Amino acid sequence: MQLTPEEQASLDLARDQSSATRRPTVPSLEERLLLPTAILDHGFVRVIDYMGDDAAVVQAARVSYGKGTKKSRQDRGLIRYLMRHRHTTPFEMCELKLHVKLPIFVARQWIRHRTANVNECSARYSVLDKEFYCPGPEELAVQSTDNKQGRGEILDSDAAAQVLDILRDDAIRGYSNYEKLMDEHDLARELARINLNLSYYTQWYWKIDLHNLLHFLSLRMHSHAQYEIRVYADAIADFVRDWVPATWEAFEDYRLGGVFLSRQGMEVVRRRLRGEQVDQENSGLSRREWKELMDSLQLD
Amino acid sequence: MQLTPEEQASLDLARDQSSATRRPTVPSLEERLLLPTAILDHGFVRVIDYMGDDAAVVQAARVSYGKGTKKSRQDRGLIRYLMRHRHTTPFEMCELKLHVKLPIFVARQWIRHRTANVNECSARYSVLDKEFYCPGPEELAVQSTDNKQGRGEILDSDAAAQVLDILRDDAIRGYSNYEKLMDEHDLARELARINLNLSYYTQWYWKIDLHNLLHFLSLRMHSHAQYEIRVYADAIADFVRDWVPATWEAFEDYRLGGVFLSRQGMEVVRRRLRGEQVDQENSGLSRREWKELMDSLQLD
Amino acid sequence: MQLTPEEQASLDLARDQSSATRRPTVPSLEERLLLPTAILDHGFVRVIDYMGDDAAVVQAARVSYGKGTKKSRQDRGLIRYLMRHRHTTPFEMCELKLHVKLPIFVARQWIRHRTANVNECSARYSVLDKEFYCPGPEELAVQSTDNKQGRGEILDSDAAAQVLDILRDDAIRGYSNYEKLMDEHDLARELARINLNLSYYTQWYWKIDLHNLLHFLSLRMHSHAQYEIRVYADAIADFVRDWVPATWEAFEDYRLGGVFLSRQGMEVVRRRLRGEQVDQENSGLSRREWKELMDSLQLD
Amino acid sequence: MQLTPEEQASLDLARDQSSATRRPTVPSLEERLLLPTAILDHGFVRVIDYMGDDAAVVQAARVSYGKGTKKSRQDRGLIRYLMRHRHTTPFEMCELKLHVKLPIFVARQWIRHRTANVNECSARYSVLDKEFYCPGPEELAVQSTDNKQGRGEILDSDAAAQVLDILRDDAIRGYSNYEKLMDEHDLARELARINLNLSYYTQWYWKIDLHNLLHFLSLRMHSHAQYEIRVYADAIADFVRDWVPATWEAFEDYRLGGVFLSRQGMEVVRRRLRGEQVDQENSGLSRREWKELMDSLQLD
Repeated sequence: MQLTPEEQASLDLARDQSSATRRPTVPSLEERLLLPTAILDHGFVRVIDYMGDDAAVVQAARVSYGKGTKKSRQDRGLIRYLMRHRHTTPFEMCELKLHVKLPIFVARQWIRHRTANVNECSARYSVLDKEFYCPGPEELAVQSTDNKQGRGEILDSDAAAQVLDILRDDAIRGYSNYEKLMDEHDLARELARINLNLSYYTQWYWKIDLHNLLHFLSLRMHSHAQYEIRVYADAIADFVRDWVPATWEAFEDYRLGGVFLSRQGMEVVRRRLRGEQVDQENSGLSRREWKELMDSLQLD
Repeated sequence: MQLTPEEQASLDLARDQSSATRRPTVPSLEERLLLPTAILDHGFVRVIDYMGDDAAVVQAARVSYGKGTKKSRQDRGLIRYLMRHRHTTPFEMCELKLHVKLPIFVARQWIRHRTANVNECSARYSVLDKEFYCPGPEELAVQSTDNKQGRGEILDSDAAAQVLDILRDDAIRGYSNYEKLMDEHDLARELARINLNLSYYTQWYWKIDLHNLLHFLSLRMHSHAQYEIRVYADAIADFVRDWVPATWEAFEDYRLGGVFLSRQGMEVVRRRLRGEQVDQENSGLSRREWKELMDSLQLD
Repeated sequence: MQLTPEEQASLDLARDQSSATRRPTVPSLEERLLLPTAILDHGFVRVIDYMGDDAAVVQAARVSYGKGTKKSRQDRGLIRYLMRHRHTTPFEMCELKLHVKLPIFVARQWIRHRTANVNECSARYSVLDKEFYCPGPEELAVQSTDNKQGRGEILDSDAAAQVLDILRDDAIRGYSNYEKLMDEHDLARELARINLNLSYYTQWYWKIDLHNLLHFLSLRMHSHAQYEIRVYADAIADFVRDWVPATWEAFEDYRLGGVFLSRQGMEVVRRRLRGEQVDQENSGLSRREWKELMDSLQLD
Repeated sequence: MQLTPEEQASLDLARDQSSATRRPTVPSLEERLLLPTAILDHGFVRVIDYMGDDAAVVQAARVSYGKGTKKSRQDRGLIRYLMRHRHTTPFEMCELKLHVKLPIFVARQWIRHRTANVNECSARYSVLDKEFYCPGPEELAVQSTDNKQGRGEILDSDAAAQVLDILRDDAIRGYSNYEKLMDEHDLARELARINLNLSYYTQWYWKIDLHNLLHFLSLRMHSHAQYEIRVYADAIADFVRDWVPATWEAFEDYRLGGVFLSRQGMEVVRRRLRGEQVDQENSGLSRREWKELMDSLQLD
């Protein structure tokens, strides 16, 4: 991602400005405010604004459970308790506003998270930038055989080169005709844009509370999420870590790093711990579920 | 929209089946259940299921205002009262489930309505159909000069022919390369699909309550909405009219056909009705607002 | 819960009516439609309407994953897969509408579930019924010492009798003065009602999709939920079991009967399964978390 | 509302703290941050945190309509355009977090606004304060005869005194028995609290975006809203005016001070402006609608 000199000047100006506030402030996030993290070939994520911090989560929880909770309980412990027991509302008391530049096919997955506020660049009003996503050769993979929505082996370099040629040529031709439709024929922008393909970049402001953001991250940082949205989720996670470190630690321990075991899965674990022999046949689990369980237990 | 013989057979079978139910039932909508209304060149809308009817709106309102409302008040009158005074929750007690086939650029506008349930065909799992939207010549218009998001004059037939050639060629080439990427290079579907442009059709199940549906319709039937989503809204409106006729009538009188006048706009009307001379200069309205007001009053 | 003869007559009439429909129909739920299940001393839950069934979940999932999924995969298997992998949107395609009569303090907990539609009886319009919740003696328990929001031992019968006298007397006096305020002083209903206490019954229509309903049930059937809302959740669960049996079974296996193990908890399990000695001190878990883990593993 | 010396000390401390931030800051709201505005006899509203300002609305709108809008267009003009044409999403980019102390019957109306985040004091964990709402004599009014949910004439002083005695005595007795149930019988707090009536105060943190806040205000500042919630809405409005003055001005002109005229109502206005004689009989309006129209036109 390259900023034009004008954009860089405007960013420098904005980052030089500072005001006094009585609101909760997080210096390590302030440091990074407005600065874009580059993603993919032309995308970025940057934090525009935030509300609250770890202490704001605690403060809201204390309103709910106030006089019944020990004064001496440490904030970190309370945050871990809230996360462990899925008391989600205190985490809704923090809010993050991002500016994101992302390919349209990523935007289409992202927008499915409904509990958020969005202002997207409109191609009815504006002419979209000539920027499309072109996967790196290391991202070009064949269709996975065991995962219907995923990728398998990487293409060899010859095949990769041919694939990239196709993707690049079609994207470029599409844009050049998009311009031609508007410039030569004065076609309405809302119609001309249908000639662009799903690899073109759009951008938006996206605002969401911390609870729903963590839910978004748990789905989109997951290994089953498409690579091209996962890199955005990872970059956002890096901001969240700076913003609310205690919440992030609890999220890693009780969500990301944890495992949900089914009724039958728990039964297998209990029997094994009692010393019983249990294998897939007498477990009540399907082969697939058995494999998933053994993987998460790091057995066999 | 053409059904394959298999699809037609399956539709016939489903429409032949009928069960007994104690639930509210609307014969005029039952008649049309599952039958697609063709939209644009390959799209459709059809009703998959519905919950409630005009009487269900009344029943819910009576729970709220029950003993305080006159027994003799007619249902139609109560529905009009609810609509007029924006008592919206009783309208949330009805629900409609649609199956829609629509171009991706239309889906991108549609999905912005967050209070709805959606299951969209996933191009990570499935290969999309070879169907793209190609505007009719009467839809090809230049960029509007007074409305930044709209269309102006229709293109002449030569220009239209050239535009259609471009749109058609690029769409076809994109799909042919999409197939090539998957067939020759076995590229993962989630990557190959980025070569398709925004005119390709997707489909989804979309479920929404009546209040939020009417809000959707008021925005998307509006003359400022893009033509290609307006035709879907119009087709849905035609189902709603059959489903909840009293609600629809009230919606036309108190929403679609009504006008919101600003504080300053009302003041102009009041002064004019008192016989005062008021023109734009002494109205406190901008030129644009003055024109909008005069238009809605059908004056000048 | 006692129906007046008029209410019984009206219920009989409604249940005698039956129409033909092409919509998905669930005979075992139809059988119970409109019939109230009595809850607590004056409350009830009854199903007013429903949309969809197990097959509607499958149908919506097939739109999303359609051509990529095996035709031969059984519906039950697909539902279990969706539940296991938290593909939640297909469950949003079913909808349930309930009529509930419940004490105000229960309504205050219930309403916190925001993704639902509600029409509640308004005490600004209507005079509330003279019905309040009085706990059975077996429900009168002391404050729990280890659970700040829960109950401990049952009161002995003398204490219970005294408690019930207080609750009953205050509730009756409150209502009698509520009537007096309206009848003798003609006080506005919206003010008079503030003299009623939180044990009084209200009622509402409540409509929610199946995914959000299951989330509601997982929280409100939980042993930590207050008894007086748990009995409503249990009664609703009994309807859901009849309505969507395959979904219910999957929900029991993958939600209700399952356990979420934290990163540290999983590590303990793995080490134990490898034959290591692990106790609380070298587990990285707090005492409380250790106890919760041992309980769920049915160890020690 | 009286602060204890401890609360006052803690408030003073918090208000003395100030940090540097790069985020948008609104000095006139900073000035009032954390300071409670007293409402009713024991309630208050105070601003805990905020995100964004008028410029943040503009910034988000420019993302959407960016290159298509004139650079020179003034911010105030753009905000007015957005409000007039119901482009609501840019207003969702600002967020306000309030701490509110309010009677339970007010909380029950307030919580119906679902698009907000809430942490309420839990009476399962905590003992509620001994504070109840007692209306001032000027608020004691008879049931309205023409508005089923409202108030009419004020009670005379004798009647008012009797009413206040009843309300006060019952509230005090309820609390005294609430304490007795917990202290003498150690009854679980979650049960004891059902003896409190709806006039008792609760408190919560409430967080909402600006668009939904304005919707809340338009309903709750309305003359038909119950007085006891209206005073809260008025106090919040006073904060919003300081926070986003341009947005507030537009809201007053295009929402609060505006009038929605129905299809038939517009027709009457048009005919009158053309010089026709129109009265209720030949207007197509009901008597009630006719009266509402004449009132809003300040005629007859």
